[in-house]
Amino acid sequence: MRICRFNKDRLGVIEDELVFDVTEALDVLTASRYPLPSFDPFIASLDKVREKINVLLPSAARFPLKDVQLLSPIANPGKLIAAPVNYTKHLEEARSDPAVHHNNKVEEIQRIGLFLKANSSMVGAGAGVAVRHPERRNDHEIELAVVIGKPGVGISRVDAWDYIAGYCIGLDMTVRGPEERSMRKSVDSYSVLGPWLVTADELPDPTSLNFQLKVNGEVKQSANTKDLLIGIPELIEFASSFYTLHPGDVIFTGTPEGVGPVQAGDRIEAEFDKIGRMEVAVRAA
Amino acid sequence: MRICRFNKDRLGVIEDELVFDVTEALDVLTASRYPLPSFDPFIASLDKVREKINVLLPSAARFPLKDVQLLSPIANPGKLIAAPVNYTKHLEEARSDPAVHHNNKVEEIQRIGLFLKANSSMVGAGAGVAVRHPERRNDHEIELAVVIGKPGVGISRVDAWDYIAGYCIGLDMTVRGPEERSMRKSVDSYSVLGPWLVTADELPDPTSLNFQLKVNGEVKQSANTKDLLIGIPELIEFASSFYTLHPGDVIFTGTPEGVGPVQAGDRIEAEFDKIGRMEVAVRAA
Repeated sequence: MRICRFNKDRLGVIEDELVFDVTEALDVLTASRYPLPSFDPFIASLDKVREKINVLLPSAARFPLKDVQLLSPIANPGKLIAAPVNYTKHLEEARSDPAVHHNNKVEEIQRIGLFLKANSSMVGAGAGVAVRHPERRNDHEIELAVVIGKPGVGISRVDAWDYIAGYCIGLDMTVRGPEERSMRKSVDSYSVLGPWLVTADELPDPTSLNFQLKVNGEVKQSANTKDLLIGIPELIEFASSFYTLHPGDVIFTGTPEGVGPVQAGDRIEAEFDKIGRMEVAVRAA
Repeated sequence: MRICRFNKDRLGVIEDELVFDVTEALDVLTASRYPLPSFDPFIASLDKVREKINVLLPSAARFPLKDVQLLSPIANPGKLIAAPVNYTKHLEEARSDPAVHHNNKVEEIQRIGLFLKANSSMVGAGAGVAVRHPERRNDHEIELAVVIGKPGVGISRVDAWDYIAGYCIGLDMTVRGPEERSMRKSVDSYSVLGPWLVTADELPDPTSLNFQLKVNGEVKQSANTKDLLIGIPELIEFASSFYTLHPGDVIFTGTPEGVGPVQAGDRIEAEFDKIGRMEVAVRAA
């Protein structure tokens, strides 16, 4: 199932370029008093919400996809985790001696560790990216984003797939400069999540997805998730060896070669096999 | 006013080693449906909650402070921001040529930037610290923690004080190692916030507070906030030049010299002038 959030916090299901309004399915979620849950309530109750969606779908109002504004499919992430340098920089290098290359790179990422992006940096495709430090380079980085479905800590790579609710396209927008990644990548709107959530049952094998990013129609990044150096289960194992993962936590799995600058006025198109396509406008903050 | 959270999400006011139970004051906060607010609702409505507290206080049930379990005074932070190396390493060095030393250090921290700690790492004093990687060094770092009171971005240092709701003691616990700070400092329970929130009106000048940290009764860190290299208003200006600050966001302002390892079985005592004192037990995860 492809589930989106759109317009004013409405819930939708995507089928054939149509959005089916199933907002009523959110009624299965109880209201919260302070202190609020520290996880995403929608993802934590995804099975229950989907049951209700299935009841609502046949009679749901429908809109052309192009007429809605897409919000981030995750509204209340506990944390946004991201992997640095996690693709072979040049596929040719990897081909010449994949085993060695692989091991070196794995060591490198496990040395650097994963980083965090501020929850306040997250937006949906419809909001666009607002460049805050235009005097610096502000780069696009397209990534597969993995949404965690249930709580876990010390998760082994063997069990990791069970902890995934679904997948999105992630743009890990980045101000270049000397500061820690967790600051430069946390500017408001610098974590774009979209266009919708593809549930794990609909995408049982995300390990071989073609994807690409264009700026103003020109292909800038083009890769396949099979070239991830640290795979999805290993990322979950690594992250959860430091902290508990909660429903709605998002792991940005890392970007391949081809990153480059954007500026106000640019239009980013991001597309992933079996997930979909989103357009993201770039403007000045 | 000194406001704590204790036992099972109860709200208290601290006076003379007594906790006055004013939990009913939270009734002024409305319940939230999904999507939940992305800020701390208690801090966002602090003035309204305090009005109600004042009504409740005279007839509130009271308990000895030593009999309650203290929770983190902030339940729903949007983000935990932290400053690296932000004190003169040795006061003597600073004294020999404070101006030069200061400028060098300021340049250094502005180069490194601020980092993030996972919200899931936050606990109160009563929960204690659970060491997850005992084969590595796990260090204590005592810091002044600043709680943001209202939303703001691009805040100038001149206006920064208006954005502060209050102060706590923060322990920025740290696994030593090569990974990014935002991973090593985000282990569950590695962000201790306590013992309570001292509201900004009660602590109008936090720029000259003595503080110290003991492990098993032995003084390990002892310093004064006047030796902060980047001061509180400058930290708020710096942070908000990258992202919007929201009510309940916390800035850990950095730790002075004397950091050192703790292990399961240790007992940390942390004390700040005009804030208070907290004991934090260390155990194995």
